[in-house]
Amino acid sequence: MREDTIGRANVEDTPELERYYAELGRQESYALWTVANDIEPWQPKPASLPTVWRYEAMRPLVLKALDLVSPEKAGRRVIALENPGRKGTSACVGWLYSGLQVMRPGEFATAHSHASSALRFIIEGRGAYTVVDGHKMELNGGDFVITPNGTWHDHGVDAGGDTTIWQDGLDMLLVNQLDANFYAVHPEHVQKSNTPVDDTVALYGGPGLLPAGGEGWNKPYSPLFKYEWGRTYETLQKASKASDGSPYDGIMMQYVNPATGGPVMKTLGACIQLLRAGERTKAHRHTGSVVYTVAKGSGHSVIAGRRYDWKKNDIFVVPSWAWHEHANASDRDDAVLFSFSDIPSMKALDLYREEALAENGGQQTPVH
Amino acid sequence: MREDTIGRANVEDTPELERYYAELGRQESYALWTVANDIEPWQPKPASLPTVWRYEAMRPLVLKALDLVSPEKAGRRVIALENPGRKGTSACVGWLYSGLQVMRPGEFATAHSHASSALRFIIEGRGAYTVVDGHKMELNGGDFVITPNGTWHDHGVDAGGDTTIWQDGLDMLLVNQLDANFYAVHPEHVQKSNTPVDDTVALYGGPGLLPAGGEGWNKPYSPLFKYEWGRTYETLQKASKASDGSPYDGIMMQYVNPATGGPVMKTLGACIQLLRAGERTKAHRHTGSVVYTVAKGSGHSVIAGRRYDWKKNDIFVVPSWAWHEHANASDRDDAVLFSFSDIPSMKALDLYREEALAENGGQQTPVH
Amino acid sequence: MREDTIGRANVEDTPELERYYAELGRQESYALWTVANDIEPWQPKPASLPTVWRYEAMRPLVLKALDLVSPEKAGRRVIALENPGRKGTSACVGWLYSGLQVMRPGEFATAHSHASSALRFIIEGRGAYTVVDGHKMELNGGDFVITPNGTWHDHGVDAGGDTTIWQDGLDMLLVNQLDANFYAVHPEHVQKSNTPVDDTVALYGGPGLLPAGGEGWNKPYSPLFKYEWGRTYETLQKASKASDGSPYDGIMMQYVNPATGGPVMKTLGACIQLLRAGERTKAHRHTGSVVYTVAKGSGHSVIAGRRYDWKKNDIFVVPSWAWHEHANASDRDDAVLFSFSDIPSMKALDLYREEALAENGGQQTPVH
Amino acid sequence: MREDTIGRANVEDTPELERYYAELGRQESYALWTVANDIEPWQPKPASLPTVWRYEAMRPLVLKALDLVSPEKAGRRVIALENPGRKGTSACVGWLYSGLQVMRPGEFATAHSHASSALRFIIEGRGAYTVVDGHKMELNGGDFVITPNGTWHDHGVDAGGDTTIWQDGLDMLLVNQLDANFYAVHPEHVQKSNTPVDDTVALYGGPGLLPAGGEGWNKPYSPLFKYEWGRTYETLQKASKASDGSPYDGIMMQYVNPATGGPVMKTLGACIQLLRAGERTKAHRHTGSVVYTVAKGSGHSVIAGRRYDWKKNDIFVVPSWAWHEHANASDRDDAVLFSFSDIPSMKALDLYREEALAENGGQQTPVH
Repeated sequence: MREDTIGRANVEDTPELERYYAELGRQESYALWTVANDIEPWQPKPASLPTVWRYEAMRPLVLKALDLVSPEKAGRRVIALENPGRKGTSACVGWLYSGLQVMRPGEFATAHSHASSALRFIIEGRGAYTVVDGHKMELNGGDFVITPNGTWHDHGVDAGGDTTIWQDGLDMLLVNQLDANFYAVHPEHVQKSNTPVDDTVALYGGPGLLPAGGEGWNKPYSPLFKYEWGRTYETLQKASKASDGSPYDGIMMQYVNPATGGPVMKTLGACIQLLRAGERTKAHRHTGSVVYTVAKGSGHSVIAGRRYDWKKNDIFVVPSWAWHEHANASDRDDAVLFSFSDIPSMKALDLYREEALAENGGQQTPVH
Repeated sequence: MREDTIGRANVEDTPELERYYAELGRQESYALWTVANDIEPWQPKPASLPTVWRYEAMRPLVLKALDLVSPEKAGRRVIALENPGRKGTSACVGWLYSGLQVMRPGEFATAHSHASSALRFIIEGRGAYTVVDGHKMELNGGDFVITPNGTWHDHGVDAGGDTTIWQDGLDMLLVNQLDANFYAVHPEHVQKSNTPVDDTVALYGGPGLLPAGGEGWNKPYSPLFKYEWGRTYETLQKASKASDGSPYDGIMMQYVNPATGGPVMKTLGACIQLLRAGERTKAHRHTGSVVYTVAKGSGHSVIAGRRYDWKKNDIFVVPSWAWHEHANASDRDDAVLFSFSDIPSMKALDLYREEALAENGGQQTPVH
Repeated sequence: MREDTIGRANVEDTPELERYYAELGRQESYALWTVANDIEPWQPKPASLPTVWRYEAMRPLVLKALDLVSPEKAGRRVIALENPGRKGTSACVGWLYSGLQVMRPGEFATAHSHASSALRFIIEGRGAYTVVDGHKMELNGGDFVITPNGTWHDHGVDAGGDTTIWQDGLDMLLVNQLDANFYAVHPEHVQKSNTPVDDTVALYGGPGLLPAGGEGWNKPYSPLFKYEWGRTYETLQKASKASDGSPYDGIMMQYVNPATGGPVMKTLGACIQLLRAGERTKAHRHTGSVVYTVAKGSGHSVIAGRRYDWKKNDIFVVPSWAWHEHANASDRDDAVLFSFSDIPSMKALDLYREEALAENGGQQTPVH
Repeated sequence: MREDTIGRANVEDTPELERYYAELGRQESYALWTVANDIEPWQPKPASLPTVWRYEAMRPLVLKALDLVSPEKAGRRVIALENPGRKGTSACVGWLYSGLQVMRPGEFATAHSHASSALRFIIEGRGAYTVVDGHKMELNGGDFVITPNGTWHDHGVDAGGDTTIWQDGLDMLLVNQLDANFYAVHPEHVQKSNTPVDDTVALYGGPGLLPAGGEGWNKPYSPLFKYEWGRTYETLQKASKASDGSPYDGIMMQYVNPATGGPVMKTLGACIQLLRAGERTKAHRHTGSVVYTVAKGSGHSVIAGRRYDWKKNDIFVVPSWAWHEHANASDRDDAVLFSFSDIPSMKALDLYREEALAENGGQQTPVH
């Protein structure tokens, strides 16, 4: 791709150059100028497309898996989302993976660990649990749970619970791209829980309080493994009365590692945001790919100039550097979006950039 | 003070040396060996003494001040605590200052700022408030509030409230020792509160949540200015069911800066600890001076080998490097101790040391 | 790829499942168990192969480019290395890019900036220079130079200098994978140098000294833009007399940001290592891809069980998690390897792992 | 001290109040308003006075100690400096200690450690050494050496060396104020040096280079224990050609921990600054106390409005918040000032403040 700009490659193919390129190829080399304009883009050009996965379409497919495979055979019974612009990558946006996992009462997935970081957002059901490094947590709708890089984890649903669907989010495709993934199965298949249920919530979930008198937490992820929906939503509501929030995101909170104030894990972060009744935000764009799940209410987002409607439990994605803005469809009720992203990776590598839309009062004019 | 140990000073005075010392004095100098053993102690030798200030003795004295001075004349109407081993220093232990401030309904102290860091723990009353850099907070018993280094702050009690007593804690004597204190009065005498009441609690008091979408907090102190008693005590109770806590301190939580997980201010930290019914801790000692206030219940502490009984609202101090252990007097109810200390200063300067008592099952045998 | 291990996917295709998979595909989704074993590998499985690019083969090809394209047309006249296991990716190992750039006296490349981080190691020539954000540096053989993320940079060779060949290293392919690259051309085409030549070396190249009295350096990369070969080699020689070094790497030094002690840039790091006369190291492996350039001497490395011989100016690569060990061919002279890698990215994302070879005295038995 | 300003204490003594104050005193308490204006100063009011100790006066006194006490009896044979405004504190300025230690060839001081941090600047002599945690260093004029908090250290002069005088600087008086000092004698009296002489210089003294391949340095002080005069002065000279330096300090470099870019120790920092021929700086003031030693040349400083002349080896002090500016007396030669201070403590506790003199072209008009 030639470009007629000073500093960009603009070399015409000639027979002599083609012979030269062949000669280079035999030495496992190539002329930079033949690809430079492609590999040095003026700005990010993600192949990922904005996409909505509607829960009303996905739910029956997910439930159907209950009859088609057992967790033992499947490892984990998950229907995963693949971006239409990234066929064959297993990614839902950027290098993020996400899927919907389903379990019947009494089922469980065996304990394992991996170098990739995982998180879960509970969509529906009652009586599910996850055990992370021996700490058992009860899971209910809207709860957010992490299973960080290197931790043992297993999941299940109590015999007396409901069939449960939760959303998984992982960085494993990125970690694979970085040639850094590891996987291990736990010798016992199922971990013994050696502490009271939800102990990390009791110890690390107090407001502005951390356990004192010991060594302190120094692992590179949050010691708070579960963020309960009840206190999370209460916090959003209180914050909406105390602050105008962000022009681009309404009342948005980041789930943080309370021992550092940083993201819950090194590679993945997660946020929860409330759009007030009638709220429509302004557009901005940033590096980093984001997966949104509608936790409450309904509305639409304008992403890269097109409108995408959503309602509860729908999942949609915003590719890196795509303009995006959100609107609550209701004039009476708030709407809440859960999201996870690779923005912590961007920031750790000094690759985060952000820009507000200057034109048109800061809002896109969507193409219908 | 001569010592007969290799490496320690052991020089006998002679007439010749005394003449030499006088000669040195005329050049604003001295022989190190005349003071070396004193200024290089084997271990900390605090002049501060363990002391209890009983609220039943202090309260009438504090209330009496209401009739004796106005806040306008006094600046602030505070009865301060002075350690019996440190007469003339204005310090209650180490270089920590603490006092009991009293205000009638409708009174207020004018807005000012200083380079020293301050904190407040509410002892009794209803309807008090403090404003920190324009953020107004309502104060009730057991609430913990900070007014950090460099912030504007003013205090008062609403006309419809009660006469209120709170405890002040400051590092100002340390800051004076460091020749680094500054003081300023606000041009308006009373700050206008420009945000909803208790907004910092709404925004920064969520469990594992921080406001996202903006620049982030980067001041060297907590953005959460008030830690409410209700949620604090609830956290202690939950934690007591989830953990055995510390052998030396029971269920202890540090009030932290949620944006960093570190202490609320650079120089001063604060903790809250619950002693379970019947609990008696083991002894340890550490560098750093601590001021305790009994927030709930009664019991005793053994400090440097002596027993000190305490009950609600009493204040007591533990000097640096003094052995100390705590006991709850009740077999049915928990007891709670609020404390503040200069331990963050110790840690920032790499001067924190800690040691457990090895002998006698880890507990002191108090002298009665 | 089915695996018969508890916790791994092991589902046989059936007509019913195949219909189901097609149905999922229509909803932009897939069953995780069809790919799980591939995307959750037991350990890193890099497609990159260990490879040596011999300078005696590459040099004539690089010089030939002088006659085939102008820098104006090419943007930059670089012959880049492509890993035989990664055809079509433009990468020499992992997502690292490297190439050999050549310039005649009097030529220059115009000023530009990008979000990717770049570094240069000077192979041969005299009179080259680079200008980074207005700071001009003279470049000679063995010098190491950085042009960090976001800085303006342009390069050239003085009219009185030699035809110069240097090696470029960039993270741009990784940054593209992360959808985070930006490119800009400088309005002036060539930057004016506004400070004395090599000023960053004068100011930040002192041993254990940093400029005081100003604001301090707070950009996320090293303020020392050039690391001179002379002082670098002198440091290696001194260190070889003061330390046994690393069993895996001999006397190895990391080029660091003197303002933090961390890597020179957030994504890329660089090291220089001396193998003493006769030295043969032990094998280890780690996550992260490494590109080595032979700065002095000759020897061989055993990588993933095969021996690769090298001599001065050869370039070779070690993929992530490949066992590797190095040997100096000479019993009299030292050998020196320059290397750059994405290890800082691995560490920033908590993905760095390292392992020593336990068997066979810690050394591989190469297949010939 | 009453003040007639809103917000300041302004209470007249009355018989009733005096009875009240006595009553408070019996409860180990006092009325804040009786001392508030003193303990909350408008700005730092150091008792320390600017002072010069002339080496021509001190040197004979220091040498005289050789005949009066042995190192065995004295512990260390040091003549220490005491600020005329701080009689009885053993401090030369603020809570900084400094003294001149003298040793004959063949003498030594036994190995010990303390929680206070120490540094040394070599004034005159040849053949001295210090051993820090087993690392032996040879000391010559102008070398700067640290013996951090908690390290074992012993000193001596080789039998074939000269009588040596060096300056000691310690934070021990501050550490005593913080009730945090510890002292221990080494079981062997003299440490065995277990590494090559000056190994920390070889390993950590390279420009922008740190040892790689191991665990990395994580102690809270510099791994580079000695900063050699030769390279230090060379760095100043290079920097003077590359930068205009600071308007207040000329070409000033901070001695840093190369593993962090921070100060050499947590409590104490040190700088070296070159005043170019004819240079006269502007005045500023800051919190933190500074002890200067003239390493080269002569000149004067204006401190708090008075002029203090100095020449090689003189020592002078600038109290906290005192205006100060420096002038080189020579129009041909540079002058160099070594200094150490407690500024790192100020910064760690967020107490550092700095201000430039606005009036009179930024320079004081000294009173003669």
